[in-house]
Amino acid sequence: MSETEVPDPALTLAPKPLPRGPTEGPLTTEELQLSARNHSMPLEALRYDITPLGLHYLLIHFDIPMIDPAHWRLSIGGQVARPIELTLDEIHARPRVTMPVTLECAGNGRSRLFPRPVSQPWVTEAVGTGLWTGTPLSELLAEAGIAADAVEIVFTGADHGIEKGHELDYARSLSVVEAERPEILLAYEMNGQPLLPQHGFPLRLIVPGWYGMASVKWLTRIEAATTPFKGYYQATNYHYRAGPDDPGTPVQRIRPRALLVPPGYPDFLTRRRTLAAGPCRIEGRAWSGEAPIERVVLGIDGGWQEAVLEPEQGPYAWRRWTSVWEAEPGEHILSCRATDASGQSQPLEPNWNWIGVGNNMVQAVPVTVR
Amino acid sequence: MSETEVPDPALTLAPKPLPRGPTEGPLTTEELQLSARNHSMPLEALRYDITPLGLHYLLIHFDIPMIDPAHWRLSIGGQVARPIELTLDEIHARPRVTMPVTLECAGNGRSRLFPRPVSQPWVTEAVGTGLWTGTPLSELLAEAGIAADAVEIVFTGADHGIEKGHELDYARSLSVVEAERPEILLAYEMNGQPLLPQHGFPLRLIVPGWYGMASVKWLTRIEAATTPFKGYYQATNYHYRAGPDDPGTPVQRIRPRALLVPPGYPDFLTRRRTLAAGPCRIEGRAWSGEAPIERVVLGIDGGWQEAVLEPEQGPYAWRRWTSVWEAEPGEHILSCRATDASGQSQPLEPNWNWIGVGNNMVQAVPVTVR
Repeated sequence: MSETEVPDPALTLAPKPLPRGPTEGPLTTEELQLSARNHSMPLEALRYDITPLGLHYLLIHFDIPMIDPAHWRLSIGGQVARPIELTLDEIHARPRVTMPVTLECAGNGRSRLFPRPVSQPWVTEAVGTGLWTGTPLSELLAEAGIAADAVEIVFTGADHGIEKGHELDYARSLSVVEAERPEILLAYEMNGQPLLPQHGFPLRLIVPGWYGMASVKWLTRIEAATTPFKGYYQATNYHYRAGPDDPGTPVQRIRPRALLVPPGYPDFLTRRRTLAAGPCRIEGRAWSGEAPIERVVLGIDGGWQEAVLEPEQGPYAWRRWTSVWEAEPGEHILSCRATDASGQSQPLEPNWNWIGVGNNMVQAVPVTVR
Repeated sequence: MSETEVPDPALTLAPKPLPRGPTEGPLTTEELQLSARNHSMPLEALRYDITPLGLHYLLIHFDIPMIDPAHWRLSIGGQVARPIELTLDEIHARPRVTMPVTLECAGNGRSRLFPRPVSQPWVTEAVGTGLWTGTPLSELLAEAGIAADAVEIVFTGADHGIEKGHELDYARSLSVVEAERPEILLAYEMNGQPLLPQHGFPLRLIVPGWYGMASVKWLTRIEAATTPFKGYYQATNYHYRAGPDDPGTPVQRIRPRALLVPPGYPDFLTRRRTLAAGPCRIEGRAWSGEAPIERVVLGIDGGWQEAVLEPEQGPYAWRRWTSVWEAEPGEHILSCRATDASGQSQPLEPNWNWIGVGNNMVQAVPVTVR
């Protein structure tokens, strides 16, 4: 083989250099690469109460670590009375809780913003509901004895890399009050099986009600701190900002959203739906991290009808809804809109911000009825 | 809520209408939607002999069918002496074979072509190795008694939709000779578990050595035919064509390819790698559907060194290789190139064709060594 030939590593899709902020330009090579790595949940999987393995969304900042559970340890330290180190077997032997929790990426809906923040270009399917099993965090914190002057608990994963010039292990914090919520789990099973590598094996945090960035995967350290954590993913990224100089407000709880299963059958390339005329039961799911879902309406060409909410499967999991549409021949646009008990409902226009987080605008599904 | 407001269903990324053939333009909304649905295998998963659940690539033309196994049946008919209908339990009770098989999407590498065919925009990771369990097809065909004048066996799935104006259930055929190969399975387990919905539950075909389009998922019918099958995915799509009027040649066996695990750690957005100077063992996998892998070379800035091939895990699964790189500070590009026993090796330039199939050009991974 030639000593001089070398393949061109650049993809050919988009001009360089990368835009430094939100762009009106086409999708970049970098966004396509991220879209290939980070999996969406196909919308037809909204049919399942619990998202089957492999269909739950994935957002992985760096590489998936390959961790040997025999050598892995969880340490609990910092400003605590009694530092703790635990093996995986010791964690498995602790009190065991199983619950369904809906997780959603804070960046869900980003690619529908204009100008478009350049990052993982989610469309609208960065969601999933896992049946998570683990041990309550609060009991371990009590055993360690959080210092009276501690204000935050910092959670650090084994995933390592660089973002915007910051080289770091992925880490996030919660206030002590939030961290002591009884429903927060150190989870080691999903859907009745040991965590898959991409979901944080051997142990991850599950923070019900919050966007996914809080549920640190590949957890290795938990530390109590007397000052607010300044890590990149806590203090810089994951903020609602109006522009590059706005300090913004932290992204925390999941904003309300409803999604529907696109009815009929798709065209491969456009995903445009075709449906036979007649009564059609539209189904979907709705969730909010702020408060329970109280109402879902189905939108048909700009009019709205009440959907029927099915019983909750748990306080932190999405809720199924249905509504019968009398589909008449022609072109239609279906939507759905959730309202939660705090009174929040979804916007009809994009929720634009500098890094494209929390865009819970309503879904719109074009359908051809024959 | 307003009766007149309705969200804009269009994404904002690219101009309409869609290009009618390969394009020099930016990535379209339709390609981004497909990239969100169809999952790649993150390259670090090349570390596993068997790809963990949820990391194997997925290419799903239409929607994932939700099939009730209690009502599902497999029928074997057409030009046979004894038509057969089987329940899932009856299939489970038949002879059971387990084997690792590497599957790759025929479109892998498409987004690196220029002009770019507009379809699922794979980068280079549309691959995976499952441990498949099922019952040999050949024995069932023998029991049914294929007619002497039959030339093909047609396999039809439950997935239904439209592509390029053709409305159809997904279907592919094999010549009778190919279909009788002993290694072809009717598979009902992957990695020791019942098939996940997205991998073809309750039953799929596994055609070792061929690109993934042959391994029909959600299988419902097998029919012997006395004339060549003219279905869209057999006679029209999945051909190597020089242009729109070239009838082309059918896509069949997997061309040789090697991929490496990008060393070091990534930048989130660009996936650019950073690595400490010193000896670094590069590892990867190589496979070919044409013949066994005989040689892999590791490319470093245009020079090539022999990699060490590890023992095969089976005749139809990828083979691990390693090679130690003495990484010196600076900017480098790593590549790898496989050669199989038929003498075929990977091209350094894109394998361009009208629909972007079989592009097995060598991978290129930029690395910064510090």
